[in-house]
Amino acid sequence: MLYFVGLGLFDEKDISLKGLEILKKVDMVFAEFFTSRLFGSNFEAIEKLIGKKIAILSREEVEEENIFIKEAKNKDIALICGGDPLIATTHTDFLVEAKKKGIATEVIHGSSIISSAPGISGLQAYKFGKVTTIPFPDDNFFPHSPYMAILENMKNNAHTLVLLDIQAHKDKYMSVNEGLSYLMKVKDERNEMSERNENNEEIAIDEAVIDENTLAIGIARVGSKDVVVKADKIANLIDYDFGGPLHCIAIPSKLHIVEAEYLVEIASAPKSILDKV
Amino acid sequence: MLYFVGLGLFDEKDISLKGLEILKKVDMVFAEFFTSRLFGSNFEAIEKLIGKKIAILSREEVEEENIFIKEAKNKDIALICGGDPLIATTHTDFLVEAKKKGIATEVIHGSSIISSAPGISGLQAYKFGKVTTIPFPDDNFFPHSPYMAILENMKNNAHTLVLLDIQAHKDKYMSVNEGLSYLMKVKDERNEMSERNENNEEIAIDEAVIDENTLAIGIARVGSKDVVVKADKIANLIDYDFGGPLHCIAIPSKLHIVEAEYLVEIASAPKSILDKV
Repeated sequence: MLYFVGLGLFDEKDISLKGLEILKKVDMVFAEFFTSRLFGSNFEAIEKLIGKKIAILSREEVEEENIFIKEAKNKDIALICGGDPLIATTHTDFLVEAKKKGIATEVIHGSSIISSAPGISGLQAYKFGKVTTIPFPDDNFFPHSPYMAILENMKNNAHTLVLLDIQAHKDKYMSVNEGLSYLMKVKDERNEMSERNENNEEIAIDEAVIDENTLAIGIARVGSKDVVVKADKIANLIDYDFGGPLHCIAIPSKLHIVEAEYLVEIASAPKSILDKV
Repeated sequence: MLYFVGLGLFDEKDISLKGLEILKKVDMVFAEFFTSRLFGSNFEAIEKLIGKKIAILSREEVEEENIFIKEAKNKDIALICGGDPLIATTHTDFLVEAKKKGIATEVIHGSSIISSAPGISGLQAYKFGKVTTIPFPDDNFFPHSPYMAILENMKNNAHTLVLLDIQAHKDKYMSVNEGLSYLMKVKDERNEMSERNENNEEIAIDEAVIDENTLAIGIARVGSKDVVVKADKIANLIDYDFGGPLHCIAIPSKLHIVEAEYLVEIASAPKSILDKV
């Protein structure tokens, strides 16, 4: 039997009672380092809670050797991960692998950034479009796609949840500030790509634009006691200190009055946003 | 102090350790009947777990009298609800109300259908567009909007999570079958609305169509041991027995090969879908 157990959002106490019972009773518990980190806790705290050691696997041991699937043939095995176990695509692959080998599986869901961040942002969950992720840029790698995803959502009257890159092996977690700087750099590059029409007038290549005046919501440490939700125009958020990881961003499309009121009261947005709804 | 505690997806063991600790220590626990039902459990099981009574409020007591916010001025109060506490819009309103009255708040997130259903559907979470909900139709109430939302998502290459109406006060929960029948009835009505061009040829009013041949995924009882995930064309799912509530539906847009493999292996979709990716 192979259990996929989500640890939830932040620390070792975000696991469900159901998940904890399973971790206590199984023969072995595995974790993969690259998706499993809990920011408000560590593996030792979980080991203490469940009364057994957690075997931490490298990416190779997980993806190439499928160690925990092999073990699950004759034993009760649990694979733990942060958040909800099926949000990471690799885990749905494991479910398929296990099924092909005739191993029974059960999924214990956990609280996930995908549902919790929209909730705590004060924006209505059913008005979010596609999620996007901003990657750490590299020498020849600076995709405009996250910016374009936000524009596309705005065109569809949809809010955007913007996840920020995690490079756990380098202990690097993108901040709201870095994410917003990334978006402003894309904006600059796209402005430079503007074209000129037959009358030599400049034509922007995008219908709309996300710029320093765009309202954004920076969110830090969802699921912890010191969660921060701060809404303001990007120019003001770009230097705001959100504290430690994990961070994410929500970019609202057109606001409903109830959403605007939440942003003013809870996320200390400028009161002027109430005039625009 | 006012805590918003999410109970998670299905039964009393889907609450987090953090949530349970809070319910044990607060002075009073409130629930509102209309969003709080757990399908795999009941309030008595939670009361046993937390060692105190839960005060169940009517809609009026919650929305007009704000009873639990009044109590939170001088006491530690928890308001419980199924899933994640901030997915229901009413709860973000309570957060605003409490803030205005100077009451400190804390949110304990829970596993939610918004993230768990996309995960268990095998479709990639970041490829979902706006969520839609199919309402129970009434004499003069049969909106086409859920159908249009799915078409809109398809146009944007986005999958759709379709939630199904809950009328808890009447103990009515829409089934996958009823939801799919609703969509097919919308399709029929829209076909009847087709227009004729100058050559008297019929022109459909929608660019695309969701019909009996469209692939859909019926999902029942996420978070329970007997979760059902079944993918097939609508014609075959419309009479399939998914068992007890809660149900929801996912309608895929264009599939990635990994998604198609999951649907075949885990959701017993017809193998022919592999030829189309």
